[in-house]
Amino acid sequence: MSHPSRYGQGLEPNPANHVPLSPVTFLSRAAAVYPDRVAVVHGDGVRTSYAEMYQRCRRLAGALAGRGIGPGDTVSVLAPNVPALLEAHYAVPMLGAVLNTINIRLDSATVAYILDHGEASVLIADTEFAATAKAALDQSGRDPLVVDYTDPEGPSADVSGVETIGTLDYEALLAEGDPEFAWEPPADEWWPICLNYTSGTTGQPKGVVYHHRGAYLNALGNLITLGLDGHSRYLWTLPMFHCNGWSHTWAVTAATATHVCLRRVDPAAIFPMIRDHRVTHLSGAPIVLNMLAHAPDEVKIAFDWPVRIATGGASPPSSVIERMEELGFEVQHLYGLTETFGPSMVCAWQDEWSELPLEQRAARCGRQGVSLITMAETRVIDQVSGDPVPADGETIGEIVHRGNTVMRGYLKNPEATAAAFADGWYHTGDLAVLHPDGYVEIKDRSKDIINSGGEKISSVELEEVLYRHPKILESAVVARPDETWGESPCAFVTLEEGAEADAEEIIEYCRQHLARFKVPRRIVFCELPKTATGKIQKYVLREQAKEI
Amino acid sequence: MSHPSRYGQGLEPNPANHVPLSPVTFLSRAAAVYPDRVAVVHGDGVRTSYAEMYQRCRRLAGALAGRGIGPGDTVSVLAPNVPALLEAHYAVPMLGAVLNTINIRLDSATVAYILDHGEASVLIADTEFAATAKAALDQSGRDPLVVDYTDPEGPSADVSGVETIGTLDYEALLAEGDPEFAWEPPADEWWPICLNYTSGTTGQPKGVVYHHRGAYLNALGNLITLGLDGHSRYLWTLPMFHCNGWSHTWAVTAATATHVCLRRVDPAAIFPMIRDHRVTHLSGAPIVLNMLAHAPDEVKIAFDWPVRIATGGASPPSSVIERMEELGFEVQHLYGLTETFGPSMVCAWQDEWSELPLEQRAARCGRQGVSLITMAETRVIDQVSGDPVPADGETIGEIVHRGNTVMRGYLKNPEATAAAFADGWYHTGDLAVLHPDGYVEIKDRSKDIINSGGEKISSVELEEVLYRHPKILESAVVARPDETWGESPCAFVTLEEGAEADAEEIIEYCRQHLARFKVPRRIVFCELPKTATGKIQKYVLREQAKEI
Repeated sequence: MSHPSRYGQGLEPNPANHVPLSPVTFLSRAAAVYPDRVAVVHGDGVRTSYAEMYQRCRRLAGALAGRGIGPGDTVSVLAPNVPALLEAHYAVPMLGAVLNTINIRLDSATVAYILDHGEASVLIADTEFAATAKAALDQSGRDPLVVDYTDPEGPSADVSGVETIGTLDYEALLAEGDPEFAWEPPADEWWPICLNYTSGTTGQPKGVVYHHRGAYLNALGNLITLGLDGHSRYLWTLPMFHCNGWSHTWAVTAATATHVCLRRVDPAAIFPMIRDHRVTHLSGAPIVLNMLAHAPDEVKIAFDWPVRIATGGASPPSSVIERMEELGFEVQHLYGLTETFGPSMVCAWQDEWSELPLEQRAARCGRQGVSLITMAETRVIDQVSGDPVPADGETIGEIVHRGNTVMRGYLKNPEATAAAFADGWYHTGDLAVLHPDGYVEIKDRSKDIINSGGEKISSVELEEVLYRHPKILESAVVARPDETWGESPCAFVTLEEGAEADAEEIIEYCRQHLARFKVPRRIVFCELPKTATGKIQKYVLREQAKEI
Repeated sequence: MSHPSRYGQGLEPNPANHVPLSPVTFLSRAAAVYPDRVAVVHGDGVRTSYAEMYQRCRRLAGALAGRGIGPGDTVSVLAPNVPALLEAHYAVPMLGAVLNTINIRLDSATVAYILDHGEASVLIADTEFAATAKAALDQSGRDPLVVDYTDPEGPSADVSGVETIGTLDYEALLAEGDPEFAWEPPADEWWPICLNYTSGTTGQPKGVVYHHRGAYLNALGNLITLGLDGHSRYLWTLPMFHCNGWSHTWAVTAATATHVCLRRVDPAAIFPMIRDHRVTHLSGAPIVLNMLAHAPDEVKIAFDWPVRIATGGASPPSSVIERMEELGFEVQHLYGLTETFGPSMVCAWQDEWSELPLEQRAARCGRQGVSLITMAETRVIDQVSGDPVPADGETIGEIVHRGNTVMRGYLKNPEATAAAFADGWYHTGDLAVLHPDGYVEIKDRSKDIINSGGEKISSVELEEVLYRHPKILESAVVARPDETWGESPCAFVTLEEGAEADAEEIIEYCRQHLARFKVPRRIVFCELPKTATGKIQKYVLREQAKEI
């Protein structure tokens, strides 16, 4: 048997046939092919063409280079979904530097931790968040170049009255740069491109390091999965600081489509924007769907073209899917993590589902699904043996991934990196079953499984039942210490506006829909605590449950 | 300034986050996600699901492995667009072996040369071409395993009466293999995947070596460019042995779409297939468009859904585009070479073109265009200085490419490889201008430029004028030695069926549409000689022109 090297004599990679993959090239191509097409819409005033966007990004890159920023330096941005944050997704990687987008809902101490840990050399901060940025800088040991981004669409000053904190304004920085700045692609597609801190529910956040290769491939994977093309208009309801907007910051440009910016998720603003800009695609956590589905009728506006909304995280309850479909949205369910550049799986639609009654359809299409085209392999494995679980829809195991859209690892955290990559797989920490049709369905995070007298209860299953109750807006179920059973389920519930119900009614409803051992022992009516990215903070509820 | 390596500590590639790109994974994913979807249609009898196709490919891989085939071995296939040829595109790379598809129109001496030069270990031959295969084997120094592919859709025996020449039949070979055969992805995405011989007009054909990385990326680039999705039906009018069907052998599977096989390009078969299988996409050389456009009316069948036909090579004359549009086809113009996995450029559509009159629209959309999304960079350079030509639509230079969809090089031909990759670019040998809108337009192959008294005349320009003549079906212009001018243009012309015209009429027509020095001195009425891939053989015409 011969070896492939026999084909390799004199045929090694050279600059003509091996070019590092980088998502920056999507912008240079879009500017070359569709220079006049609208790349960015922001408010009433901003309509940036692809030629202009590319020039602005080259200006920013040139200006940063002039300020000494280069390969391996960290540029942090604290901003909502504004053009500057999008521009940073191209300008920073043009220098081989690393973009660190910071969640605007974080407290100043956490922002300070991120600036320190990520060794930020620049901080670009939207003036609405000037007070947070200032407090963070005061607590931080770093002394980065601070740039104010003053957005005409934003408030003129932040709530504390702080207006600007920086050395110069963003537009002044851009004016320092050459619109024809000659940027260089990365020398290697494995070079770092982004540093994204997880919003971790315990301990300090971890810094997830992305590579150019993965950003390029996941952008193409998302373009294909969402069905983006040159006529798509993508409304930014998903934070760009969240896994770089699930790589859509690059995917929309790859498709030469239009980015429609949005500072704040508000149904009263979103419906008119869908109408006025003929939006075709948007994304968001289930909470965004919830907000749209439950928006007051006077806010809702009908549209007569297909609008696809991609969601991830917990599966949307069937009632929300139903309301969204009635409004004209097509709901697409994705799954992913910060560690996987956003989406790693999609609940790929099967034609025959269209014929199913709503409940069954929602149950099918709300699963986490199958690998995205650019994710090489997904398995659900037994956490002890490492073997794949049977595709029986019952046996719970951990979702693990292998592919090119998995992070390099955690910055300066070899232990966490080694744990994440144990046995040559990326371990998501999410517990799921594999259905006979090959679709994965999450049952819980490892720590969210409730162990009641040896019976394992999935909090997700309970929540799905509770969500279906007509009076319930949101719910979360956690384990509560129980003298008899070890743990028992405790449900926290938010009712629909104006609805009334008592614990007895909810428990009786659960008895009709759940095995007896799974019925929550306690029902607590309250607002649910959420993380900065809109995830329900179960660890807060677990603490509360202990106190009851 | 720090270096990106600061981000690299402990964050080197590992099996979880760096997986070799390979187009074989598109099939395993399609089989997992859409096991019951029709992957392959062939004639009235064959409807293969993706689950079955994957099993058949694994059987073939397993059987070949059992026969000793492994990494670096060459498996040759001599067949038209039949399921076996498609299956080989997955089964052979599963082994790290190299697929060598052979043009069925080649003579036995050339096939023998290819078997020898490529060191074929296996030859799978469709029985229609048994006589050619047998003659080639007789002339070859190789003794490969010979497998007969007997297609129920094919003739029962070849014209010479030869029926089978192999050790065993294709289906018998498959029966030796395990449908669950555990194949391995390539250890490195730079591994060879295919060996494609150019149909070169002079000298022996050169063996172009492809890599897994490029095949994966060009498949995604083509999926995006053609707009393939899970509901697409791709009719195989383009030979799979031609640059692996422009990478569509993999792109269609990546889209989880349906392959509709076709042994022979015949409008009388194609129109009913479009209707019966609701074909959405097909591709082919301009000659295929010509055949469809000029098919007898009784053969043409109307359809009321969008059908996109991608074409490449010479730009289709506007009259052909007009006829194709009337028939309901949307014509998409691509450009590429064997060396670039097929398409490297696309004449990306600009919305405002839709408003233009036919002539102008055809002139715009028939250009070679801009880089495909997965081709990193295209330039038109001065052949002496290497500098980019101005974007003036006039200055002629050579098209050069840089990107990941460029071949590894030519097998056992270091001189040709070095010449092709001079100065870090892949040199196409095609001469073109760059228009102010950034679109490339081919003027000629280097050797097809006619030098008449120091004036350079583009044979393509003359051909475009001739094609527009209502009586002309096809034309080709070459240089003819001229005592006064050095060279002068000589036009070879095929008239439409039933049309009559004399040289005077054609020359007079040219005078009205061309600068005087460009008008052909001679008009020859004849059938045009063509290569096995349907390209007009200009070197034959050049010889004829000398004799006149």
